[in-house]
Amino acid sequence: MEVTQILHMNGGLGETSYANNSLIARKVISMSTQMIEESVTELYKSMVPKTMCIADLGSSAGPNTLFAASEVVRTVGKLRQKLEHRAALDFQIYLNDLPGNDFNSLFRVFLPRFQSELRREMPPGSGQCFVYGAPGSFYGRLFAAKSLHFVHSSTSLMWLSKVPAGVGLNKENICVSSTSPKTVINAYYKQFQGDFSTFLRCRSEEVVGGGRMVLSMLGRKSEEASSQDGCYIWELLAMAIKEMVSQGLIEENKLHTFHIPYFTPSPAEVAAEVEKEGSFALNAVEVSEISWAACSNSPLHSENAWHMASCLRSVAEPLLVEQFGEVLIDELFENYRKILSHRMSVEDNKFVNVSVSMTRRD
Amino acid sequence: MEVTQILHMNGGLGETSYANNSLIARKVISMSTQMIEESVTELYKSMVPKTMCIADLGSSAGPNTLFAASEVVRTVGKLRQKLEHRAALDFQIYLNDLPGNDFNSLFRVFLPRFQSELRREMPPGSGQCFVYGAPGSFYGRLFAAKSLHFVHSSTSLMWLSKVPAGVGLNKENICVSSTSPKTVINAYYKQFQGDFSTFLRCRSEEVVGGGRMVLSMLGRKSEEASSQDGCYIWELLAMAIKEMVSQGLIEENKLHTFHIPYFTPSPAEVAAEVEKEGSFALNAVEVSEISWAACSNSPLHSENAWHMASCLRSVAEPLLVEQFGEVLIDELFENYRKILSHRMSVEDNKFVNVSVSMTRRD
Repeated sequence: MEVTQILHMNGGLGETSYANNSLIARKVISMSTQMIEESVTELYKSMVPKTMCIADLGSSAGPNTLFAASEVVRTVGKLRQKLEHRAALDFQIYLNDLPGNDFNSLFRVFLPRFQSELRREMPPGSGQCFVYGAPGSFYGRLFAAKSLHFVHSSTSLMWLSKVPAGVGLNKENICVSSTSPKTVINAYYKQFQGDFSTFLRCRSEEVVGGGRMVLSMLGRKSEEASSQDGCYIWELLAMAIKEMVSQGLIEENKLHTFHIPYFTPSPAEVAAEVEKEGSFALNAVEVSEISWAACSNSPLHSENAWHMASCLRSVAEPLLVEQFGEVLIDELFENYRKILSHRMSVEDNKFVNVSVSMTRRD
Repeated sequence: MEVTQILHMNGGLGETSYANNSLIARKVISMSTQMIEESVTELYKSMVPKTMCIADLGSSAGPNTLFAASEVVRTVGKLRQKLEHRAALDFQIYLNDLPGNDFNSLFRVFLPRFQSELRREMPPGSGQCFVYGAPGSFYGRLFAAKSLHFVHSSTSLMWLSKVPAGVGLNKENICVSSTSPKTVINAYYKQFQGDFSTFLRCRSEEVVGGGRMVLSMLGRKSEEASSQDGCYIWELLAMAIKEMVSQGLIEENKLHTFHIPYFTPSPAEVAAEVEKEGSFALNAVEVSEISWAACSNSPLHSENAWHMASCLRSVAEPLLVEQFGEVLIDELFENYRKILSHRMSVEDNKFVNVSVSMTRRD
């Protein structure tokens, strides 16, 4: 089956839903708030559009889904007050994700909250926000030529369009890992390069000259792709699976053929693709870190581990169910939670966030 | 509760889903195919847009959802071949319905079918179709100013924005009916006038000068609002409810306070609102009929009645559940089916479709 048909956050609003386990994603988006504000401010000043078209790519369906859009609308609203721009400005906001995303919850639960917040904040006559769902892969075209002013994406672009060819030797690893063969690491990196370059080429068609993008993705600080700050979270999940293989609950071959389509790039790797593709001028690249413990606000490792396991579950469950079946999922995540709890008591692990801001060349 | 929060077709893909019971709607849309073709041909010739923005309002989620959009894309495609227009033309297609609509099924099941059909039909390089979900009531603004070229709506505009005030005297009727008091009929008509006028005003902001609309709705031929060709289908549903009241299964008061927000206008009533609102020039008004029996292709009344009851159920179940609870729904529709079966064996009842084509004045 195609990755685009399996990969999606857990839908609905229940205990294992992404909507209820998206605190990390929220903290990561918050890290690039300033970059969004700066980018949008420059954009508005240079263009003063009558309708502002914004896309959030890989927006999922949860309380964070409209966070970036809110930031954009608020930033522009404040700027227009300062500049005394009084003509109405409409926003068209496109929320993109794969078709497996839970757009029903998004439209029924999270969109109304956003709209009522905006009604309180936007002075009457200042314009309206229209929100649309844009289903599809962002590794393909999603919008008409020159139809967007601003594109945002957070914690999505580390997901590849597919499992790279040539990773069969990765055996007991499910992603790039410290014990992955060099050829496997190269295969993952090549896939990232190809995918990110395709992403940039598609967006270069869709974004108007002078339009802007702010992209954030989970990445790494080290230039070494197999370093622990990249895929450690998946290494620990692989450990949990391995445990179940040794207990005879999962066939070894199932583990050996399971590969997560995921690559955490370094800032230099991201910048290199932007330069190479050439349609966008790079304004800034930033790296920030967030402790795994920030997953919850608890001082207890065990509780943090529980939240962390829930977060990963809400993201990875559809992929795991496809490979290992539904029956073992609870047990797998219970094992994972135990492993996380131990690690979080002895190490302070961090997620690395790579953010990049760019402008479409004319 | 607000009508906009309850009113939606039955979601999913099961036996009682709208997706599986939309043959009538399909036949009704087919009736205005020629009007769509003519309107879109004139539109394209007069504008030759680089990107064509289309909205289908009240599109629901089923096999018909993309029928009108397909017609538009095909018509323009053929015309461009004839005119030898070779520059790529992108389509942005917005599918609107209330947030309770099953956008998940739409995006996961029906959109992929549409996309693969189009890929077969559209020559490479001729342009692309981008499809978005636009959740919200069409009795409010849905799109930015002057952002649409063509608007279509089928079998949706007979649904009112709310139950009109002052219909309390309608007692045993659930909609306009031959035994409805004059004041009740007037209240329904006033609500239609207000709602349709609001609809036109909203669209007048959104459609570019020279842009077009083709709207079809269930209506009536007679100028008498209480005539049988309008709401007979609901009269028979009221009979089924009344039967259950007499059996003590439903409280009488529940029936007396149940009102369907629905009005089937005559062609003259539709035209009058278009003229009064004034933003659109009326090109054509047409009336057509379709036999209830066309619901299925069976020669058996009993089978036709079963399909007809299923059709109505897929449309009205959420409203009925809200008023009467879930427990009685199966029995209610079984009664309804019997009543329909009898009527269809002695009468040839018809749905009336009113279609109107108009152009946004510059």
